[in-house]
Amino acid sequence: MGVSIKKVFSAFIFDTFYTYSTVKVVQVPNTFVALLYRLLQLIIFAYIALYIVWYKQGYQQFQEPRGTSIIKVKGIAKVTGNSTISNVGTDSSHLWDTAEYQLPPLENNAFFIATRQTVTYNQVEGNCPSALEDKLICNTTSTNDTCPQDQPTPNTFGYFTGKCVDSVQNESVSVCEIHAWCPEELSKSTEYIMNSDDVANFTVYLKTVVTFTLFNITLRNVRDDTNFSCRYDKDNDPRCPIIRIGDILTNLKTNKTALLLEGGLIEIRQDWTCNFDFHQSRCYPTLEFSILQSGDDKNSPGVNYRSGQKYHQNGTDYRILSKIYGLRFVIAISGNGGQFNIVNLFVAIGSGIGFMVIADIVCDAIFTYIHKYRQRYRQGKFSTVEISSSRLHSEENLVR
Amino acid sequence: MGVSIKKVFSAFIFDTFYTYSTVKVVQVPNTFVALLYRLLQLIIFAYIALYIVWYKQGYQQFQEPRGTSIIKVKGIAKVTGNSTISNVGTDSSHLWDTAEYQLPPLENNAFFIATRQTVTYNQVEGNCPSALEDKLICNTTSTNDTCPQDQPTPNTFGYFTGKCVDSVQNESVSVCEIHAWCPEELSKSTEYIMNSDDVANFTVYLKTVVTFTLFNITLRNVRDDTNFSCRYDKDNDPRCPIIRIGDILTNLKTNKTALLLEGGLIEIRQDWTCNFDFHQSRCYPTLEFSILQSGDDKNSPGVNYRSGQKYHQNGTDYRILSKIYGLRFVIAISGNGGQFNIVNLFVAIGSGIGFMVIADIVCDAIFTYIHKYRQRYRQGKFSTVEISSSRLHSEENLVR
Amino acid sequence: MGVSIKKVFSAFIFDTFYTYSTVKVVQVPNTFVALLYRLLQLIIFAYIALYIVWYKQGYQQFQEPRGTSIIKVKGIAKVTGNSTISNVGTDSSHLWDTAEYQLPPLENNAFFIATRQTVTYNQVEGNCPSALEDKLICNTTSTNDTCPQDQPTPNTFGYFTGKCVDSVQNESVSVCEIHAWCPEELSKSTEYIMNSDDVANFTVYLKTVVTFTLFNITLRNVRDDTNFSCRYDKDNDPRCPIIRIGDILTNLKTNKTALLLEGGLIEIRQDWTCNFDFHQSRCYPTLEFSILQSGDDKNSPGVNYRSGQKYHQNGTDYRILSKIYGLRFVIAISGNGGQFNIVNLFVAIGSGIGFMVIADIVCDAIFTYIHKYRQRYRQGKFSTVEISSSRLHSEENLVR
Repeated sequence: MGVSIKKVFSAFIFDTFYTYSTVKVVQVPNTFVALLYRLLQLIIFAYIALYIVWYKQGYQQFQEPRGTSIIKVKGIAKVTGNSTISNVGTDSSHLWDTAEYQLPPLENNAFFIATRQTVTYNQVEGNCPSALEDKLICNTTSTNDTCPQDQPTPNTFGYFTGKCVDSVQNESVSVCEIHAWCPEELSKSTEYIMNSDDVANFTVYLKTVVTFTLFNITLRNVRDDTNFSCRYDKDNDPRCPIIRIGDILTNLKTNKTALLLEGGLIEIRQDWTCNFDFHQSRCYPTLEFSILQSGDDKNSPGVNYRSGQKYHQNGTDYRILSKIYGLRFVIAISGNGGQFNIVNLFVAIGSGIGFMVIADIVCDAIFTYIHKYRQRYRQGKFSTVEISSSRLHSEENLVR
Repeated sequence: MGVSIKKVFSAFIFDTFYTYSTVKVVQVPNTFVALLYRLLQLIIFAYIALYIVWYKQGYQQFQEPRGTSIIKVKGIAKVTGNSTISNVGTDSSHLWDTAEYQLPPLENNAFFIATRQTVTYNQVEGNCPSALEDKLICNTTSTNDTCPQDQPTPNTFGYFTGKCVDSVQNESVSVCEIHAWCPEELSKSTEYIMNSDDVANFTVYLKTVVTFTLFNITLRNVRDDTNFSCRYDKDNDPRCPIIRIGDILTNLKTNKTALLLEGGLIEIRQDWTCNFDFHQSRCYPTLEFSILQSGDDKNSPGVNYRSGQKYHQNGTDYRILSKIYGLRFVIAISGNGGQFNIVNLFVAIGSGIGFMVIADIVCDAIFTYIHKYRQRYRQGKFSTVEISSSRLHSEENLVR
Repeated sequence: MGVSIKKVFSAFIFDTFYTYSTVKVVQVPNTFVALLYRLLQLIIFAYIALYIVWYKQGYQQFQEPRGTSIIKVKGIAKVTGNSTISNVGTDSSHLWDTAEYQLPPLENNAFFIATRQTVTYNQVEGNCPSALEDKLICNTTSTNDTCPQDQPTPNTFGYFTGKCVDSVQNESVSVCEIHAWCPEELSKSTEYIMNSDDVANFTVYLKTVVTFTLFNITLRNVRDDTNFSCRYDKDNDPRCPIIRIGDILTNLKTNKTALLLEGGLIEIRQDWTCNFDFHQSRCYPTLEFSILQSGDDKNSPGVNYRSGQKYHQNGTDYRILSKIYGLRFVIAISGNGGQFNIVNLFVAIGSGIGFMVIADIVCDAIFTYIHKYRQRYRQGKFSTVEISSSRLHSEENLVR
């Protein structure tokens, strides 16, 4: 007969709420397989409990910290200045303190130490011969090709006037005239170079505060027990917030001379890896120094930038142009804070239970397909229902 | 009889370690349902294996990168300056090179190109009439209301002196006198506007280093094979690190004229989406430009800031105040690095196995409630244990 | 007989594709256990559905936002300046507007308000007596010990010349002579202190744009309906983008006087917690203010930095050195955006199904080990297959 929804439903209700249904089980007294079965379960359980949940901390929720640093650079350096191009005049010696070399003086999670400056004094807007280094050699006949009027110069310091004039550096050579801030940096400037030993003795004080918003936890690297006469040392004093620049540089695999001359980008990574299920007060950052941009890099070496200072004198605007090379330090705050999270634990365990079925499959397969008495096992385990053939046949089935 | 813990326990031990228990199975020779059953299993399996694990990379752990950029802006621009307010004197033409328009010269993952400056020269602390634009019109009778003494002015440039004086811009009008840096910006200043075509020809060189701390991987967008005469082009040269400002602007849906005049905030998003299970060297960033603050925005359009330069002359402190409008670019480093992670894979599969039960439920339901011969099926599948009724009855049960 | 792979395989194929195998079930008409069973299932289901999936949003994928702020500080303050050391001359009064106190004028997600400046005018490189505060007292006999020639001074402002000279501040005392920028900051400088009431009236306008790259969503805190005459108020106007500095300070648990005098670091946390499965337009940030560095901190209190301005006069280079104390504000953008994610949902449910087995285990245990009629139940549920003993015995088994 056909299917009556009503009947189906009532049957369903009965099965669901009045009778408890459990699977019929065949027991096979076989110690070997029994133990194998339990062993498999044990392995799976151990894997979940020990590896996933415990070792891999599958029960924790993680967040990366965000933080801010207050940075103080201390130190003084001797500087020698000399007119780079026309080497007239002897070297002059100068002093650079923090206000001189920390440019810009205030940054967010970064600081810059100028180690070299190329300063061009008394620049005025006007026309002047380009520098020899620009290699804009011309002759009065073919100026339009080499010095296309009103076109920017390759170094984009100015525009071609279209004229071809004598070089100031070497009268015998004719170069394109440019309309720019004159004199050009390359043709007349003074070079200031910091004494490398002095730089090494600079110290930087890092005071960092990090927050794990997810857990509403704030940590500091400077605590009440911090001793301010210390110097950071990876092995002996890893918690000291005062770091010698020299110590940072020695750890870097790079050409130090080029680094101080051309500048470079150095990352100070503060790694906060914390387990907040245990005493969070124990969590201190570890420091790692890595060079992101070396001074002798093939592609655009070093780090430098230009900055101008204007002044007005007898009706004309003058500018002092400084090309500043130096060590750029960026503080990168990384790490992971882990804290117990019910969802993660739940998912880890729940999905683990799923794996338990493997044990059944394996043992079952042994008996059904491999074991010596598999026939007998199958007879015991399996019974057939012939739902399509003659009633009698199926009846007989049910009896077996 | 009651429950004896000892007995229960021993029974439990016996069941656990000496006999292997497996479920008794009823086999129904029904190709249709059998195939349906396998089909369902296949679908679930495919879903787990292909979609969750493979396509959605459920086997991977992800981390967003953190990075730093070295930024170099190149280009020169013609600038026209004219006295904004009292239009005396003809326009003057000037030159702005990097040192002039990149203010501040060094930033962290950001740079600023000044496109317009309103400069007020020779400001001195003192009293002066407020500018007409301030609309602080008064008459000598009711000064206290319009010019409340010692109160800050609405634009917070200074304090009211309480006096009502003639405007410098228009003698016929009386305005509140203010104690501030005089002359006020609005009443007497010079405007410098950059030639928009020149800005478009500026180029910015982005050299980025990103780190995936979780996988301890560092990547760069500039590699040994980078050609430095290239220009970035989304389609033809997406890996070129040198970008024309003009190319950035043309892609933005915004009023260019307003943008250059009032300034704006533009985001350069560098997206690093990497699969570290394959050659990480293949991972290059893609660039996206989006305007975060347009120049014609209803609410506080553009981007600008004020900066002052002090100088001392004949015993008085003077100041040059510059209101600097410009394009502010921020480099946002986003993306996702994925790498094989055993926990994630485990959880994905494990939870998948759980779904397998669906196949059983469906097929079982068919036979139990819908199939033509469900009665016979039920007889075969289900047997009843009358644990509360007469022994005989249950005995008979067990025989069936 | 031994195992024939061929046979095994064919048997496997047959089982797999031609017969549907389902577990043989024993039904126990016991309402109590039946209901207990369903109850357990219900609890587990509710736990998954309500707690994990719904409440804990296990169906969502989360990402932290990244953003940029355009910051505008407005306000003017009265400043009193007086020569700190030799208190000659009366106090002078000055005016500081944005250009004076916002240093640097443009930063990325941060701003600084100078509240105090110690300015040393007309510094020249040369030799001068150290300041009394340096406590470098010496006597002409033992200069080499106290003033080691060419060694940097403890405060690293300069180098010892090795000479012992009279102090400029107090003729009767002899101090080490130093080679540095003279006069030294501590021995002769002018102090400018901002009126604290005026600072409180400053306002900062925060215009933030955040992006959730994962969901490709961009949000702003300033919208068309924003009223620009508002002032932020946690309770009454939490969406207002204009914040009174005074309101920020009053909420901070710290010594305000010390804060304004020594400076400090204040975090403005913008928390964007959004559920993108609902109208994202409803998502507004909440603000939190916290002090990261107080002005009266035991370890290195306050925030300050030094900045120098050079100028040239009659052939000598002069410098104006400013030690700038102030309130450093950093904008921290945190939060979590959640959006439906099929993988997370899948994993949550899938692992949940695994837990369902608990219900079976419990109820089964009751009947097998605890229930009064457990014997009868076991007879009904369990049948034994003696796969190792005599054929007859096992035969009999199969019949039972």
